Amino acid sequence: MVRKLTDSATDRSETSRLVEAIGRLLPALERFNRYDGPDPAARDRERWQDRLNQPLPEHGSGLDDVLSELAEVVIPHGLRNGAPGFSGWVTTAPTTAGTAASLAATVAGSQRWWLQPFNYLESVALRWLADLLGLPSSWQGTFTAGGSSANLVALGAARQQAFERLGHDPARGGLPSLPARIYASTEVHHVVIRAAAVLGLGREAVVGIPVDAGGRIQLDDLRRILEEDRSAGVVPVALVATAGTVNTGAVDPIAPMADLATEFGSWLHVDGAYGLFGRLDERVAALYEGLERADSAVVDPHKWLATPMGIGAVFVRDRSLLGRAFTLEPAAYLEGAVDSEADISSPFDSFGELFHDFNLDQSAPSRGAVVWAVLREIGADGMRQRVRRHNDFARRLAELVGADERLELLAAPTLSICCFRYRAPGIDDATLDRINAEISHRLRAETPYVPSSTRVAGRFAIRPCYINPRTTLNEVDGLARSVREIGDRIANEQGVLKSA
Amino acid sequence: MVRKLTDSATDRSETSRLVEAIGRLLPALERFNRYDGPDPAARDRERWQDRLNQPLPEHGSGLDDVLSELAEVVIPHGLRNGAPGFSGWVTTAPTTAGTAASLAATVAGSQRWWLQPFNYLESVALRWLADLLGLPSSWQGTFTAGGSSANLVALGAARQQAFERLGHDPARGGLPSLPARIYASTEVHHVVIRAAAVLGLGREAVVGIPVDAGGRIQLDDLRRILEEDRSAGVVPVALVATAGTVNTGAVDPIAPMADLATEFGSWLHVDGAYGLFGRLDERVAALYEGLERADSAVVDPHKWLATPMGIGAVFVRDRSLLGRAFTLEPAAYLEGAVDSEADISSPFDSFGELFHDFNLDQSAPSRGAVVWAVLREIGADGMRQRVRRHNDFARRLAELVGADERLELLAAPTLSICCFRYRAPGIDDATLDRINAEISHRLRAETPYVPSSTRVAGRFAIRPCYINPRTTLNEVDGLARSVREIGDRIANEQGVLKSA
Repeated sequence: MVRKLTDSATDRSETSRLVEAIGRLLPALERFNRYDGPDPAARDRERWQDRLNQPLPEHGSGLDDVLSELAEVVIPHGLRNGAPGFSGWVTTAPTTAGTAASLAATVAGSQRWWLQPFNYLESVALRWLADLLGLPSSWQGTFTAGGSSANLVALGAARQQAFERLGHDPARGGLPSLPARIYASTEVHHVVIRAAAVLGLGREAVVGIPVDAGGRIQLDDLRRILEEDRSAGVVPVALVATAGTVNTGAVDPIAPMADLATEFGSWLHVDGAYGLFGRLDERVAALYEGLERADSAVVDPHKWLATPMGIGAVFVRDRSLLGRAFTLEPAAYLEGAVDSEADISSPFDSFGELFHDFNLDQSAPSRGAVVWAVLREIGADGMRQRVRRHNDFARRLAELVGADERLELLAAPTLSICCFRYRAPGIDDATLDRINAEISHRLRAETPYVPSSTRVAGRFAIRPCYINPRTTLNEVDGLARSVREIGDRIANEQGVLKSA
Repeated sequence: MVRKLTDSATDRSETSRLVEAIGRLLPALERFNRYDGPDPAARDRERWQDRLNQPLPEHGSGLDDVLSELAEVVIPHGLRNGAPGFSGWVTTAPTTAGTAASLAATVAGSQRWWLQPFNYLESVALRWLADLLGLPSSWQGTFTAGGSSANLVALGAARQQAFERLGHDPARGGLPSLPARIYASTEVHHVVIRAAAVLGLGREAVVGIPVDAGGRIQLDDLRRILEEDRSAGVVPVALVATAGTVNTGAVDPIAPMADLATEFGSWLHVDGAYGLFGRLDERVAALYEGLERADSAVVDPHKWLATPMGIGAVFVRDRSLLGRAFTLEPAAYLEGAVDSEADISSPFDSFGELFHDFNLDQSAPSRGAVVWAVLREIGADGMRQRVRRHNDFARRLAELVGADERLELLAAPTLSICCFRYRAPGIDDATLDRINAEISHRLRAETPYVPSSTRVAGRFAIRPCYINPRTTLNEVDGLARSVREIGDRIANEQGVLKSA
């Protein structure tokens, strides 16, 4: 006897009605995208938290209810990191082309495999990115979920090379018991340090080399420590050059580091998650000399290229090495199901161009289609213009700061970050730190200008990072003006100017 | 002098026009979603490949052109893994609620941080998932890019515990030189093996324990090897129970493995990327007994819950341990920029609820908002119904197979996978393998039924895995009928039946 079904024959979920459902969200999204009026998210937080703080529903409320909640409660209080005045951290919101391509990939390309355009565009987009950035076309590229995993993949390949040279295959046999280190400046991004933790080298294996006044790794110190470690028998897993630190945008000296990597038999990795696109500005392109001599490089399309969040990329010189480090063993349920390419009549007859042996994912969405869409829209020269404009923003801000006696430049811009602070005569650094922290707070509370902040040589710095395609000169000038005005106001309130 | 800009003041990218732009894609997406007619992707591949195989454009072609290419070239040839007849691998296409929420998150929640609903819904969705699956609410959950990274995170926590007990902090100081192993059945998913490679333990550290006829780990063998290894001083990093193997859907005996983990002082990890949702079917729920005694568990919302691709989840019992394994060091440009919670007037005054210390990402999209939307639409009982229905599909197919002398069941369904093959009297296994591979090929070429295949006890098996909410009984019955018909046809063509 063949069974009857115990439950209803159709699923509760709506699987069609896309035009209607998405159509209902679009006005709310377009309204959100205008970033009109003050940001209501913090002000109304009790209201939307109460509304969303529900237990798991036993009975679903259906698609219409979900769309209403999204349109009325969630989206209007969304994250305004794409607003023109937002220049915080290294994050922005996507442009329309990337958003559209991402939706297309969600619906029609929900795996990056098989013989179909969302697979094919992975390769096209990686080729375009490499071409744009001047990376050798022979390097193996792969998209990742972001810069953190991209750096992990690059350093996993570095680990593979370092120990293979000593006769070990760490991916197969595990890490041998040998002291091993990664060399980076003290400005290295902390995801590199976590990558060392994940890879079994340990966070302490990342040696923090001091930086010069410009935030670049001190080559003398690097050489000295490499020599000491060579004498001590330490395996040099990788030198990490940061091409655009997140604090000040400094670019480590890549070519001299490539020389050192060669001399000491180490891998050279370039972390350009934020700043690799900086190479497109010919005025600073010389800072990237030697990039093609590196062994791996990372860039995040979800930063300066302003794709939707969740797209990093890593390029590695030695494809087979990368494969040995990250290969998945063949699986019957995968490879067993695919024919040779001789007779292809279905997209499922071929895996297409494969990337799951080169990174941390197996299933993954097509990130290539998104990068392709963004680059196709604006072209190489559109991206070059953006990078130059944003670098100009930082320089213009530095000049505004230099022209105002109450503002002080803390780090001259290399790329699109400008670190500065409010100052007034006779006020000590500790007080200035407090005042500038309060300025940052009031900027967020009272103005459309939302930079983030950092420390430069121990001092609290206001730190706009210009990667947002919506930002204009108005926001640059407005930030300088507001910092001055708010700073004066706080100084007066606190009476600190009287002692001057 | 304050500089003028060297380039145009506005970006080439379109950052508004969402209603119009997305609106132009929606008809193509809705048409795609109907999966009408034969799949054109393979047939037309030269055409769309030629069209897409372009060099990086120097000048962008603008948003309208991108939308046209997406609507006319890319989307119509997209991946039909959501078609009702598709039952391959463990993948499907998302439902409308998840697609809508994903679009909302792309535009209005492009980071999961800060005081805003897309952050808040990360916590809500993790709580809902834990509640749905019967996981203790005290466990720390975190979303990942998928099951591969989710398993890597869980095993990273296991590694942390194993070596901390011996006085080492592997995330801080690196892996000590001690033999260490992970114990899993030979049916374990290969991403677990890659995780061991990434973590520095090595792929060979994963011991493949034999399985019984039902595909479940042999407890006697597991105990024997654990005892041998204990005598040899091997560190038992983790036992891995697979809750729903990808080949046959087998569920390892969790409770006895929890006993062994306790006895041998090891971590118990449950990889339920595909099958943890199986617990919602009360007829098989007993197979999951002991789950709450595990130390970590993985489930992929982008599988059976049918969210958009790119959403895995991992839950770990010991929150602080997970933090020690994956913490990011504090960074001035992040933490330095955020006030105490005392005076919050901007969403950027607070990071909200943080997850970047518990996994591999720093920046990441809000995956919680998507899971929340899907669960809110269908509720716990909607998901229970789906799981029961899909498990019924596999059982019904097994009964159809049992009722047909030319079909042979190769693995009785545990969850929603049914492995079977065509057979005919007097044909040897090697010939049956060839015939069934050809049946699989013709199914893809000629019918709407696209299962994948695997090997069961060395035999080629046709392997539908029912997780697709669009699949109905018609596709189940149609697959059985088509395999029989195509099998008979091939057997006749090849004359293999004559010898019978």
